[in-house]
Amino acid sequence: MSKITLNADIGESYGNWQMGNDKAIMALIDHANIACGFHAGDPLVMHTTISLAKQHNVSIGAHVSYPDIQGFGRRSMTLSRVELIAIVQAQLAMLEGMCKCQQVTLDYVKPHGALYNDMMQQPDIFESILIALKGFHQHYPLVIQGLANNKPQQALADKYKTKLRYEGFADRAYTDRGLLVSRNNPNALLNNQESLAQAGLMIAKKPILTESKQKLHIQVDTICVHSDSQSALVLCQDIRNLISQQGV
Amino acid sequence: MSKITLNADIGESYGNWQMGNDKAIMALIDHANIACGFHAGDPLVMHTTISLAKQHNVSIGAHVSYPDIQGFGRRSMTLSRVELIAIVQAQLAMLEGMCKCQQVTLDYVKPHGALYNDMMQQPDIFESILIALKGFHQHYPLVIQGLANNKPQQALADKYKTKLRYEGFADRAYTDRGLLVSRNNPNALLNNQESLAQAGLMIAKKPILTESKQKLHIQVDTICVHSDSQSALVLCQDIRNLISQQGV
Amino acid sequence: MSKITLNADIGESYGNWQMGNDKAIMALIDHANIACGFHAGDPLVMHTTISLAKQHNVSIGAHVSYPDIQGFGRRSMTLSRVELIAIVQAQLAMLEGMCKCQQVTLDYVKPHGALYNDMMQQPDIFESILIALKGFHQHYPLVIQGLANNKPQQALADKYKTKLRYEGFADRAYTDRGLLVSRNNPNALLNNQESLAQAGLMIAKKPILTESKQKLHIQVDTICVHSDSQSALVLCQDIRNLISQQGV
Amino acid sequence: MSKITLNADIGESYGNWQMGNDKAIMALIDHANIACGFHAGDPLVMHTTISLAKQHNVSIGAHVSYPDIQGFGRRSMTLSRVELIAIVQAQLAMLEGMCKCQQVTLDYVKPHGALYNDMMQQPDIFESILIALKGFHQHYPLVIQGLANNKPQQALADKYKTKLRYEGFADRAYTDRGLLVSRNNPNALLNNQESLAQAGLMIAKKPILTESKQKLHIQVDTICVHSDSQSALVLCQDIRNLISQQGV
Repeated sequence: MSKITLNADIGESYGNWQMGNDKAIMALIDHANIACGFHAGDPLVMHTTISLAKQHNVSIGAHVSYPDIQGFGRRSMTLSRVELIAIVQAQLAMLEGMCKCQQVTLDYVKPHGALYNDMMQQPDIFESILIALKGFHQHYPLVIQGLANNKPQQALADKYKTKLRYEGFADRAYTDRGLLVSRNNPNALLNNQESLAQAGLMIAKKPILTESKQKLHIQVDTICVHSDSQSALVLCQDIRNLISQQGV
Repeated sequence: MSKITLNADIGESYGNWQMGNDKAIMALIDHANIACGFHAGDPLVMHTTISLAKQHNVSIGAHVSYPDIQGFGRRSMTLSRVELIAIVQAQLAMLEGMCKCQQVTLDYVKPHGALYNDMMQQPDIFESILIALKGFHQHYPLVIQGLANNKPQQALADKYKTKLRYEGFADRAYTDRGLLVSRNNPNALLNNQESLAQAGLMIAKKPILTESKQKLHIQVDTICVHSDSQSALVLCQDIRNLISQQGV
Repeated sequence: MSKITLNADIGESYGNWQMGNDKAIMALIDHANIACGFHAGDPLVMHTTISLAKQHNVSIGAHVSYPDIQGFGRRSMTLSRVELIAIVQAQLAMLEGMCKCQQVTLDYVKPHGALYNDMMQQPDIFESILIALKGFHQHYPLVIQGLANNKPQQALADKYKTKLRYEGFADRAYTDRGLLVSRNNPNALLNNQESLAQAGLMIAKKPILTESKQKLHIQVDTICVHSDSQSALVLCQDIRNLISQQGV
Repeated sequence: MSKITLNADIGESYGNWQMGNDKAIMALIDHANIACGFHAGDPLVMHTTISLAKQHNVSIGAHVSYPDIQGFGRRSMTLSRVELIAIVQAQLAMLEGMCKCQQVTLDYVKPHGALYNDMMQQPDIFESILIALKGFHQHYPLVIQGLANNKPQQALADKYKTKLRYEGFADRAYTDRGLLVSRNNPNALLNNQESLAQAGLMIAKKPILTESKQKLHIQVDTICVHSDSQSALVLCQDIRNLISQQGV
C-alpha cells in the first residue's frame, strides 16, 4: 500500500504580484501543482518555480486552468470542446518544455479552480480533459477529487487509459455523500486540530467522519495542503510529520 | 549550394479575428513561422495552423514575440534579460509541445515584429535570444535578416553555437548599406515586377540593386513572402515558380 | 407610434485585427452599439468608431460585455454580482468619457454576446445589469430582446426605473414562444428575401410568422442588422429603404 | 504659500492578488493616485478604492499607465501618438465615470511607472500626455517630478494650458542636477531618519541636500509616500505629523 503524499498549488504569483509562501511550502510537499500562465504564473514565475521544485526534489504537476488571469481561473467559462482541449494541451506543452530546460520532468496534471470543479460535476468537461491528455504526446496521470464513489470518473478514465490519482482535503468538512461541505456553510472549514485528525485518518487509509459524524470511506492518494497563512504552514508541517511517523 | 526557400508569417488569427490567407499561402511555402500566442495565435489557432502545415508538409518555425496581443508584438518593450529569456522559452515550449501532439517537429525560430527589429539593432537583445535558444532543451536554428555585413551577428551566434539562417525580402528596397529602406520612404516598397526581379537575383545568389542602383551582396537563405492581399499571393506564386525553374 | 430604428454592433476591431465593415454600415443605421474594450475595441478603435458615428449623426450605445477578449465575449462566465456591476459600469464610464471628448453623448446600453444571452435567460443577471445602470451617474435605457412575453423583464426594469427598448432580428427564425430558433437548427437563419419580409412585418408593427407559420406578436422598437458580408449590407440597405418608405 | 501635501499610489491590487496596505495609507494621505486598470486595478478594485478614498475624504487622481498588466506598467513601450492619447483618455474616462457613480470627483492625473519616466525624459511623450489632457472633456492638472529646472516642462504645459503640480520623493537621494540617484546606486534610497529630514526641508520649502551634500532647490508641491512595508508606513505617519505641526 503506497504512502499518502502531499501536494500544494504553487507558482501563483504574476508579474509584480506575489502570492503564497512557495519557498516554505516547497520544503514540505511531494508534489507541486505549478500554474501554467493561464490563471497565474507568467513565464519568469514558471521558470523560478520549476527551479525551486528541482532544488527540493519535488515532483511537478501542470496546474491547468481556464484562460482567465483577472478571475484567477475561478470563474466558470463555457468553452467548446476543441477549444478546451487546445487550451489544456497548450498549458501542458508550455510547462513541460520549461521543465525540460531545467532537466526535470513533468509528472502529472491537476486542473485548477473552476475547471477542477466543473470537471468533477460535468462528465462532458471531464471527458474533454481526458481527450486532451490522451492526445498529448506524453500521457500524464490526472489528479481528481476522491469521493465516496468515483466509479463514473474511473470508468471514463479507463476508457481513455488515463491513470487517476485521488486527492483529499484535510481542512474541509465532507458531506455524508463524500462531497465537500460548501464554503457558504459555517462548518465548511476545519480548524487545525480537526484537520490534523482528518489527515491522520486519510494517511491511515481509514474512514473519515462526515459533517454528521458518519464514518465514510474516501479514496485518497494525496492530500492537498496550503501555504497562504502561517497557520496553514503549521498544519502542513504537522501532516508531514504524521506521514513520516507512518513510515516507521 | 542549397536552394533558396520561402517562408511566411502564419497563424496570426486570434479568437474571433481572422488574419491572412493561411490556406492559400501554406500551399506555396517551405517554412511557416507560426505565432505562439504572445502577439497572435491562441491555442486553438495554433493547433489548426500546425495541422495545416502538416497537411502541406511545410516545416514549422516558432514566431516568438514580445508579450503584446493588443499591439500585435509591434511595440518595442523594455524587458529584463531573465524575463526575455523566459518569454522566448515559454513560446518555444508551447509551440513545440503542440507540434508533438500532431507528430510533427518544430524546426527553427524566427522572432516577430518589434522583437525582430530590436534583435537586429541591439546586440544585447540578440544575445538574450541566443541564450534562450542555447538554454532550451533542443537547440533550434535562428532566422535573422541578411545584411551586407552579418559578421557581428554570426560571431555572437557562433559563441552560443546557434545556427543562423539569413532572410531576404523580395518586396522591400535595400539601402546601400544593406538595410531595408524605411517604410516612411515612398520608395520602400517594390511593385510586383520589381519584387520578382529582386527575388530572382536572390534565388540566383547574385547581388541585388540598392535604392541608388548599386550592386550589393546580401546573404539570403530564405525569402519572406506575404499573403495579406491577392497581389501578394500572386507574387508569392511567381517566386515559387522561379525557384522551381531554378531547380531544373 | 414611433418608427422602428436600425442598430448594429460596431467598433469590434482590436489592435491589428479588423472586423466588420463599419464605414458602410454606419451610413445605414440609427444606433451604433460600440464595443467598450472588454470583448473588442481597444481605446484607439473606440476613438475612431465614435468619430465615425459622430460624422454620420448616429446615436451611440455601450455594447458592454463579459471581460473576455480572446473569446470575443461569447463565453458565459460566472461572476459575482458586485464584480458584474463594476465591470458594466467601468465599460459605460470608459465609452461615455470618450464620447464626451468628441462632444457627443452616450445614449443607451446593449449587452453583448454571452452577457446578452445570460441576461435574457437568468433574471439574476438581468437584475445585476439593472442595478449597474441605476447606480451609474446617468441612467441610460437598456436594449433587450423583444419576446412574445417581456412582462417579467419589464416588471424588473420598472422596479429599477430603467427604460427598456425591445430589439428584433430580421434574419432569424422565431419559435412559437417568441424565442430565436437555435443556430444549431438548419432553419435558424432566414435568407435575404425572408428577412426583408420579416423586417417589413416588424416595421409595420404587425405579427411575424414563426417557424411553424403561426402569427405571433413580438415587441420591436429597433431591428439589429449586420455588416459582416456584402449580402448582409444589401439586406440592411433594403430594410433602410423599407423604413424610409414607411415614413412617407 | 500652500502647504505640502502627501500622495500615494493606491488601488494596485488585481483580481485575486493583493498589493499594498491601502486602508492604512489612505488615512494618512491627501491624494490617492488610483490605478485605472491598465497596469493594475480591475473594475471591482477601482470601485472599492474609490469608496475608500471617499470615506477618508482623500482627493483622487488617475494613475494612468502603459497597457501592461503583466509588466505592471514598468516596461517602456513604443506607442504611436494617437494610440497613447487614446490610452490615456480611456483611463481618465473609466476612473472619472466610476468616481461619479460614488458622487466624488476626479481631481488630477499622474502617470505611472515607465510612462512617468518616459514623460520626464522624452518631450514627445510629455506632449502626447498634454494633448490627451487638453482633449479630454475636463482639463485636469498633471503631477510631474519636481526637478532643479522644470522650465522646459512648464513651458510646454503652458502651451497646452495644463496646470502642473510638482512632486518630491522623501526617501530618494537626489543628484546635484536634481534628478533621482539611480536605484542601481547603493546610495539611492535614504533610511527613515534621512527621509524624514529631507521631507522636513521640502515641507519648509528649503533647499535639500544632494548626494554630494550640495544645497539644491527642488520645486515640491506634494510628496510621494509608500505603504509597501511597516517601515514605509511609519515614515509616512512621521511626515504627516511634520506637516501638521507646520500648520500650527
